[in-house]
Amino acid sequence: MSHSDVKVLSSWRSLFGVRVLIALKAKGVEYEFIDEPDLGNKSKLLLESNPVHKKIPVLIHKGKPICESLIIVQYIDETWPSQHDKGSFLPQDPYERALVRFWADYVDKKVYEGCILILKNIEGELMEQGRSVVRESMVALDGALRDVFSPGPYFGGDQINLVDIALASYLCLIETMETLGNFKVLDESTCPHLCAWVKAVVQYPGVKEGLATAPSQKLLESICSMRKTIFGLTE
Amino acid sequence: MSHSDVKVLSSWRSLFGVRVLIALKAKGVEYEFIDEPDLGNKSKLLLESNPVHKKIPVLIHKGKPICESLIIVQYIDETWPSQHDKGSFLPQDPYERALVRFWADYVDKKVYEGCILILKNIEGELMEQGRSVVRESMVALDGALRDVFSPGPYFGGDQINLVDIALASYLCLIETMETLGNFKVLDESTCPHLCAWVKAVVQYPGVKEGLATAPSQKLLESICSMRKTIFGLTE
Repeated sequence: MSHSDVKVLSSWRSLFGVRVLIALKAKGVEYEFIDEPDLGNKSKLLLESNPVHKKIPVLIHKGKPICESLIIVQYIDETWPSQHDKGSFLPQDPYERALVRFWADYVDKKVYEGCILILKNIEGELMEQGRSVVRESMVALDGALRDVFSPGPYFGGDQINLVDIALASYLCLIETMETLGNFKVLDESTCPHLCAWVKAVVQYPGVKEGLATAPSQKLLESICSMRKTIFGLTE
Repeated sequence: MSHSDVKVLSSWRSLFGVRVLIALKAKGVEYEFIDEPDLGNKSKLLLESNPVHKKIPVLIHKGKPICESLIIVQYIDETWPSQHDKGSFLPQDPYERALVRFWADYVDKKVYEGCILILKNIEGELMEQGRSVVRESMVALDGALRDVFSPGPYFGGDQINLVDIALASYLCLIETMETLGNFKVLDESTCPHLCAWVKAVVQYPGVKEGLATAPSQKLLESICSMRKTIFGLTE
């Protein structure tokens, strides 16, 4: 396949874009990264590729756009299948597939909800709510690793699956959340399985390289600047 | 398979439950319906079956619970596959699958957002926003039927798919939305393809029977009563 057959339209700041990069890297698919530099002034390519939501990331494969990060990850999984089910982001069994979909959806709803509350607020009731939602979601995911996806170390067992990719992208944001929310996102005493998962997943081929595209400290600086200009928030 | 192998824990009021019933009926799978009568006082079975979200519907298949309506519909599709791809709720091609997932997700996000605004508010800015979101989503879905899923009549072509099931469940709510929002949800002049879809889909085997479990007028009365007791809203 020619290099330019696969394009990722995103920004280094997009943790949803990181999911797409992790999936492509884990599958060994080469791609061209097209930077969308200014979401306040969206490119013609973005508006044409995702006319409904007008959001990054978009995967453009052989000229056809695919939108929404977890839908893109499933497309990547189905388009570049791995041999003998090894390396697939979804198991074969329908019930196990439903569990993976449920927990990936949980990350998309609950962890996202908590993050947004922290990013868009300063100290006060909503910030406290953000911390609670993030803490609760971490405990729930820790329980899922222990009870549903045992014995780990990944949600996918000895390889990553859709839940691993959905959640791993948030690792870019831990430093930002802890700084802005002034709390500890993950605690060894309440989330031992998730703490072990973090140590394992950041070394996983593809995840490591994907996360490296959105360095934590640089993201924190970018988000602090965005909070001032877009939300008018100052500490 | 024994009748009691498949149980649906839901309420006749749940339009997400209607999705599960449509999917089972379209596949010809028999089930036992377990009514969850009072969501203010949830049953032990619900709390045990869906400890994370504590929400209906839950499909219980051979004792194993599956939660979240569109995840349940995909589970049904994968557990009771149809012959020769006929009757499947998702196409085989990865790109077409991504399009179906995108639009089903769109219904879950956008149509839901508009409905909730209408159900939870009385006249005012938020109600107007609800009407706008619903109108916009109808126009977008009409465009998808015309451009993406042509030639119809269903989103799945000559059979229903995941988008059809996701959207059809909202047909139970049209009367409620039009009464509470005092507007027309679907207009022949702006949504001709969607209007034709409604006429076709309500006659589709399984959809017709599924929608009949949540009669429009009864749902309107139930929601009006709920608006008074839960949200304290009176016209």
